[in-house]
Amino acid sequence: MAEEYLGGSGGVWPADKPQEECGIFGIYGAGLDVARITYYGLYALQHRGQESAGIAVGDGERIQLIKDMGLVSDVFNHEKLSSFQGHLAVGHVRYSTTGSSHPVNAQPLVFRYARGMIGLAHNGNIANITELRSHLASTGAVFQSSTDSEVIVNLIARYSQNGLADAIHKCMVDIKGGYAILLLTEKSLIGVRDPFGIRPLCLGRKGDAHILASESCALDTVGAELVRDVEPGEIIIIDENGVNSRKPVQAGRRAHCIFEYIYFARPDSRMDGFSVSKVRREMGRQLAREYPVEADLVIPVPDSGTTAARGFAEQSGIPFEEGLMKNRYIGRTFIQPTQSIRDLGVRLKLNPVRDVLNGKRVVVVDDSIVRGTTSGKIVNMLREFGAREVHFCLSSPPVKKSCYYGIDTSNEEELIAAHKSLAEIKDFIGADGLHYLSLEGLLGVFGESRDNFCTACFSGDYPVAIPKPYEAGKYVLE
Amino acid sequence: MAEEYLGGSGGVWPADKPQEECGIFGIYGAGLDVARITYYGLYALQHRGQESAGIAVGDGERIQLIKDMGLVSDVFNHEKLSSFQGHLAVGHVRYSTTGSSHPVNAQPLVFRYARGMIGLAHNGNIANITELRSHLASTGAVFQSSTDSEVIVNLIARYSQNGLADAIHKCMVDIKGGYAILLLTEKSLIGVRDPFGIRPLCLGRKGDAHILASESCALDTVGAELVRDVEPGEIIIIDENGVNSRKPVQAGRRAHCIFEYIYFARPDSRMDGFSVSKVRREMGRQLAREYPVEADLVIPVPDSGTTAARGFAEQSGIPFEEGLMKNRYIGRTFIQPTQSIRDLGVRLKLNPVRDVLNGKRVVVVDDSIVRGTTSGKIVNMLREFGAREVHFCLSSPPVKKSCYYGIDTSNEEELIAAHKSLAEIKDFIGADGLHYLSLEGLLGVFGESRDNFCTACFSGDYPVAIPKPYEAGKYVLE
Amino acid sequence: MAEEYLGGSGGVWPADKPQEECGIFGIYGAGLDVARITYYGLYALQHRGQESAGIAVGDGERIQLIKDMGLVSDVFNHEKLSSFQGHLAVGHVRYSTTGSSHPVNAQPLVFRYARGMIGLAHNGNIANITELRSHLASTGAVFQSSTDSEVIVNLIARYSQNGLADAIHKCMVDIKGGYAILLLTEKSLIGVRDPFGIRPLCLGRKGDAHILASESCALDTVGAELVRDVEPGEIIIIDENGVNSRKPVQAGRRAHCIFEYIYFARPDSRMDGFSVSKVRREMGRQLAREYPVEADLVIPVPDSGTTAARGFAEQSGIPFEEGLMKNRYIGRTFIQPTQSIRDLGVRLKLNPVRDVLNGKRVVVVDDSIVRGTTSGKIVNMLREFGAREVHFCLSSPPVKKSCYYGIDTSNEEELIAAHKSLAEIKDFIGADGLHYLSLEGLLGVFGESRDNFCTACFSGDYPVAIPKPYEAGKYVLE
Amino acid sequence: MAEEYLGGSGGVWPADKPQEECGIFGIYGAGLDVARITYYGLYALQHRGQESAGIAVGDGERIQLIKDMGLVSDVFNHEKLSSFQGHLAVGHVRYSTTGSSHPVNAQPLVFRYARGMIGLAHNGNIANITELRSHLASTGAVFQSSTDSEVIVNLIARYSQNGLADAIHKCMVDIKGGYAILLLTEKSLIGVRDPFGIRPLCLGRKGDAHILASESCALDTVGAELVRDVEPGEIIIIDENGVNSRKPVQAGRRAHCIFEYIYFARPDSRMDGFSVSKVRREMGRQLAREYPVEADLVIPVPDSGTTAARGFAEQSGIPFEEGLMKNRYIGRTFIQPTQSIRDLGVRLKLNPVRDVLNGKRVVVVDDSIVRGTTSGKIVNMLREFGAREVHFCLSSPPVKKSCYYGIDTSNEEELIAAHKSLAEIKDFIGADGLHYLSLEGLLGVFGESRDNFCTACFSGDYPVAIPKPYEAGKYVLE
Repeated sequence: MAEEYLGGSGGVWPADKPQEECGIFGIYGAGLDVARITYYGLYALQHRGQESAGIAVGDGERIQLIKDMGLVSDVFNHEKLSSFQGHLAVGHVRYSTTGSSHPVNAQPLVFRYARGMIGLAHNGNIANITELRSHLASTGAVFQSSTDSEVIVNLIARYSQNGLADAIHKCMVDIKGGYAILLLTEKSLIGVRDPFGIRPLCLGRKGDAHILASESCALDTVGAELVRDVEPGEIIIIDENGVNSRKPVQAGRRAHCIFEYIYFARPDSRMDGFSVSKVRREMGRQLAREYPVEADLVIPVPDSGTTAARGFAEQSGIPFEEGLMKNRYIGRTFIQPTQSIRDLGVRLKLNPVRDVLNGKRVVVVDDSIVRGTTSGKIVNMLREFGAREVHFCLSSPPVKKSCYYGIDTSNEEELIAAHKSLAEIKDFIGADGLHYLSLEGLLGVFGESRDNFCTACFSGDYPVAIPKPYEAGKYVLE
Repeated sequence: MAEEYLGGSGGVWPADKPQEECGIFGIYGAGLDVARITYYGLYALQHRGQESAGIAVGDGERIQLIKDMGLVSDVFNHEKLSSFQGHLAVGHVRYSTTGSSHPVNAQPLVFRYARGMIGLAHNGNIANITELRSHLASTGAVFQSSTDSEVIVNLIARYSQNGLADAIHKCMVDIKGGYAILLLTEKSLIGVRDPFGIRPLCLGRKGDAHILASESCALDTVGAELVRDVEPGEIIIIDENGVNSRKPVQAGRRAHCIFEYIYFARPDSRMDGFSVSKVRREMGRQLAREYPVEADLVIPVPDSGTTAARGFAEQSGIPFEEGLMKNRYIGRTFIQPTQSIRDLGVRLKLNPVRDVLNGKRVVVVDDSIVRGTTSGKIVNMLREFGAREVHFCLSSPPVKKSCYYGIDTSNEEELIAAHKSLAEIKDFIGADGLHYLSLEGLLGVFGESRDNFCTACFSGDYPVAIPKPYEAGKYVLE
Repeated sequence: MAEEYLGGSGGVWPADKPQEECGIFGIYGAGLDVARITYYGLYALQHRGQESAGIAVGDGERIQLIKDMGLVSDVFNHEKLSSFQGHLAVGHVRYSTTGSSHPVNAQPLVFRYARGMIGLAHNGNIANITELRSHLASTGAVFQSSTDSEVIVNLIARYSQNGLADAIHKCMVDIKGGYAILLLTEKSLIGVRDPFGIRPLCLGRKGDAHILASESCALDTVGAELVRDVEPGEIIIIDENGVNSRKPVQAGRRAHCIFEYIYFARPDSRMDGFSVSKVRREMGRQLAREYPVEADLVIPVPDSGTTAARGFAEQSGIPFEEGLMKNRYIGRTFIQPTQSIRDLGVRLKLNPVRDVLNGKRVVVVDDSIVRGTTSGKIVNMLREFGAREVHFCLSSPPVKKSCYYGIDTSNEEELIAAHKSLAEIKDFIGADGLHYLSLEGLLGVFGESRDNFCTACFSGDYPVAIPKPYEAGKYVLE
Repeated sequence: MAEEYLGGSGGVWPADKPQEECGIFGIYGAGLDVARITYYGLYALQHRGQESAGIAVGDGERIQLIKDMGLVSDVFNHEKLSSFQGHLAVGHVRYSTTGSSHPVNAQPLVFRYARGMIGLAHNGNIANITELRSHLASTGAVFQSSTDSEVIVNLIARYSQNGLADAIHKCMVDIKGGYAILLLTEKSLIGVRDPFGIRPLCLGRKGDAHILASESCALDTVGAELVRDVEPGEIIIIDENGVNSRKPVQAGRRAHCIFEYIYFARPDSRMDGFSVSKVRREMGRQLAREYPVEADLVIPVPDSGTTAARGFAEQSGIPFEEGLMKNRYIGRTFIQPTQSIRDLGVRLKLNPVRDVLNGKRVVVVDDSIVRGTTSGKIVNMLREFGAREVHFCLSSPPVKKSCYYGIDTSNEEELIAAHKSLAEIKDFIGADGLHYLSLEGLLGVFGESRDNFCTACFSGDYPVAIPKPYEAGKYVLE
């Protein structure tokens, strides 16, 4: 679970994790304080993005918008929330995949077009964005941001002669990638999920109100119940006529992002039929089966490795301990250590417990390694506090390929597993042992659904074709 | 001179003045700190708009943008200014004519379009904006703001196949109104003035650098010299080849906004051949000629009436006194008086000097009356502090018509002179005498150039046709 | 572990926990960036107080001070930290026991007195403060705050004729209570611990530099090592002559606050000879021994019950699960639910995991109950998410008495265990079972040191006499 | 009139003016919103100090306090003002004489002492502060700030056995200097003016409410009327029994600060019997009589020289012109020009009007010269914009001595007139002529009251003895 607010400049050290881009939440509920419910829904999705937050509210006539850089609780205060009036809303929290960190990239975006106003909150990445954008620009379109979202809205506007639903359909044919989108008109809330179901989206209900959200934990938080996941390729339109669904575009298979289960989603969410908590624990158990090490302790790298570490401990019978304490009080602007005290480094955030570690053979469980820099520091630090042996175990296979569907895994050249062998990585981080969960083992956790996931970052097997040469990096549009 | 910062909520009382919309400043200067010079240039133009401020800087490859709500000195700090790199820049301060007070309406706007990036800073109003916008939207254009400026950029993008200069030309054919526009590409700075020369724009020089600005006082402030005014209908393109001019669109006459001389422009500016200070003083002299009252004192409503009052005093021989002291310390958020102490009203800002006024017959000189509410309070207050007679003199004719070229004169129904006779206004404000400068007298100040001005707000003689019915009000696009 | 930043208004719901008041950190280190090290030290102690933070730095000649309301990382930025110059410092994070939440109560306090300047950072509570304060006032003393600390400084100033050490000694004779105090003069750092050792303080070393801190985790974080705990009644003076100790005042016994081990201290701290983590785990084991319930799961109330829950699970053999997910993204100003959605209540912060709980008999482990309101909500919520039975277990005995030595346990009338029987509490919170760790069981965890702790809040056995009638409540001085 | 808000760092250039230290305002008014009235009163006194602002309100039982760095309108918002409850209040705006710019020095100060609570707002300077402070410290007093005010409160507390009035009397005997003090207890408002009447204080009335303020313009602003000036040495006690006066301490003469009339006070104030506006105008007339120069124009340095310049013009018959335009939009943090564009210097704030100045012989009128640096820049700039001759005239005699009674005139070594002859100063600033108003001429303006003023900064004739050696400078206490 990605719990930290890394602050404006990325916090104490570069978070050596894949980065989720966004969380989205929408509600249609006459008589409810939809802005406030969206606020709490976004709060529950804050782990999906801490860079900016925004809410747009429709009242049947027009759309109001407030957004800014920062946490949900920093962007909104009582006065701002109370200024909203209306019965339908969408909200967005953003990390940032395409588009750099800049206010102009905060979402939702709200546009006026030929048919009125439209708001958009988007989670995901469009792989053929450069091509689409060039095409639009060649016919006179202008863009203020570098986000995929602005391209999507332009496409919808161009296709809108026969109504919004038709325009969305045409847009889905054009765009290739992983996405979950919420659209808000003055009178309707619309949810769209990509044909492969790469990015998550679910439908909930709170009394007579209908909700769409990235994860079911947001439904729990606002006292709503999970109705079902939005299906791959499905368009859900919620308005005064209730909930209507259509599925104009279909892919041959499902390809849910498997990293949602490994790292992104909150353990208390239920996603495409699986309890994240249970699946994550089972990954830890499988890890233990694959790596039968002799050791005294299993400790997690908190909080991302905690659930898997517990599974590992249960399966292996090796005692689970909290050997690393995490400081969670990173405020808005944590000051980086200067050169003279840079040795403090990772210790400011994770403090080893000497009484636990001293003289022990330790299995450390984390979810993944991206560049490998932090892992090496952790191994070092554990030894310094007395660990006799350090075995580093990951509840995911080696991340070797970039993701083009909405996760910021860094460029391939930065991925340690793209360039180093297992033995080299072990040496690089200084561990006595290193084990990655096998892809087989990972998929086995999902039983009969094992073929329904996107594993491209491990296997290079991309469900949606990637334009070549892909101009990688999130600044491609700038 | 419009000197107050009205603060977030409009200050102590509704400013009963026409509102200027914007000030613009641009510079092309290799080797100079163009962002900082633009900062000081905007600072000198702050009287033209206090709602938002922004600067965009080009470096030959791309355009950086920082803007926010507030004064120039509130929006920028050392760190932000220093983050800019480049050799050409445009800046903008905004009051707000079209488009409500909202961050999304702050300028400059920066867009990506088929030919790269383009920034725009705009002063003025497009009379046929609704029509142009509808047309653009019908072919798929989307709009994030309610500003004219976004429409202009869309037009330019649509017309850009044969290059930017051609696109600007075509755009000028389409748009009807009063405007001065600065465009910034990665490599060039372009200035455009409407064919009637309604809104002001001048060209300056600082060493090898070229500058475009709304008023010459901004040139003085940054140590540049005034080269000349940009001509009506002129396009000035400044790039590595120096300054190039073209005049593809011509109107049959000039129609400079006469309110710039009456109220908006700083007295130390020189505009279209006239010293604002001298012209404004002469208006006061003419006022005295037209209204030969017997009185003990001439006092201005500071600061807008100060220069004309001095002219009145000189001509009439009646002593000039400062009978109203103005408090200029309105910070960001001045708190309005509550009902219980609302009688304080205008007194918080203007304090009469009893020792000056007591027992005296007073001529008060102000520049104009819009709704008449504040004028009445001033007359009242002067009597309360001992004035025996109060004669209210205005250095402009009665404002009877709305402006469609960039000044917010309020809707016609709010203009007191549109609905009341001179005698009724005199009664309404409670003065013993009331005199407006005659239109003849006003124009006489300009001698042989008397036909080169737009006097539509007094006479209803609009130089550019107004679409009928004009959907008045600045929220027309929202 | 008290991990939340409750924000300005106390967060989502009244934190139903005893409240620790403060954390203190001091360093004497020539050539080091002592302000920055203090910043990181305070960051590691942030769990001890989130209301205000401050740092005072001495340079041999004078003392500089910066403090404000908020988290350490909110109060300080790079510019402020860099403005400090000197080689010795004290820092403080504050919750608030005596003295309401107000900037004037933030610490350190810095005073000028007859012998120069003196800064003070204080953790604890003086039981006879009212009496001392009255006495001082009767001889002309004035007070700007309502803190104990201002009284202490006045006492020291009055007694300072024979030097600071003598004055501290005399002050220690006068003041009755639990305290750890850091004093900073222009040239020396002084640590004082109360004669019973109620509040914690330890001595560390980082190269040639000496450090005093509330908990050893702060030493780890800044890369220092733990030398030893400061002894009860000890005064440690650190200056250019190194570390000097004296023990002028002695009590007949030790009485370390046992709640530090139950709840306050970070698990990775070592305090008066015990690993907090180990002790806390053992409390959970003992709890399981005392309450041999039949159940399917043990779940903690995160994060305060996590370590004890794990001990319970190990001892009982019942599987440990994370059945409640905690949202840690409370920013500066979290907006309270309005009446209409108040049912969300505790759910905004703790979300039950239905897949874990459904149909299960659950043992919930928390550290303590103060008023009982939150516990009831948690039980309710667990049932709503499917728990078949809920057994509430506390790793502390019932809190029946107020603390007068630095912990805000609320007034006795608010303590549920002061007024209700075990059976009544069980009914009140709606649990199927309820068990508090026995005082015997708690003390047994500490083996031979069992008599060295203050257990007054459970037993009413106060080591230091309490003035009668004690004017309870933290606003006593206002 | 000192109208600029110089911002945190002193604005664009060092303000080469004496600096007034503070403005004070107090009200006793049952049934009124005293906090809000105080807010507006302070707003009217903002020219007397822009560094910090504060309000303390009493309700019969206790005193509430809010204060911070910044303008009145920056420190207070609606929420803060509304949080006050009570019927008596004191407020303070501060520049800073004794005591550096630091939040701890903001006023009012509120203390608890033996008899309850007491708030203090103070304008002035105590010449023997060091001695008083040492004495207090030697008997155990401690000080948190470096202000005179804290010493005064300590004295009052020490003397309070026989009641507050007696304590104030004793305190007045001890303190030597110029001061106006407002004290607030839970139930009474007390005003004190020094025995020589150096610093101003007046009494006003608004319905049944009584007001004390530094200047009468604050009475006008809140709709109150001036009753009379508080007399030198007078103590005014306002409580439920109405207004009571006593005059326990008397000096042999009056010595009102003459700089209030020359520069500090607002022209619309009436002070100790004189209209500031009229007196200031008369100074200009006298200046013209003393310096019968042949010239084409008289221009003021706005705003401080405006009134005197007008007097000069009237007397001499030389036309008055606005030759320097002042930019008043300095926000909170105006960015200083960097080295590369430092030539802009004073021009950012004062812009010469070429059309006015070109080819003319100019008399420039300002109120005073302190260090002379800005005056030189102004002369330079006027020549650059075409002035043929520049005559610099000051409406005050040369400032040669430091003030010890509440004005920051800089140390004697920085005063240009203390070290240079008239001819040397003329050369230093580069003027064609230079004339200071003679002391005779200045005093003549006041007619028969000519001996009632302190002219120490010109003559060295100090009405109150100055301790020798006076430890000059405002940081003396730090």
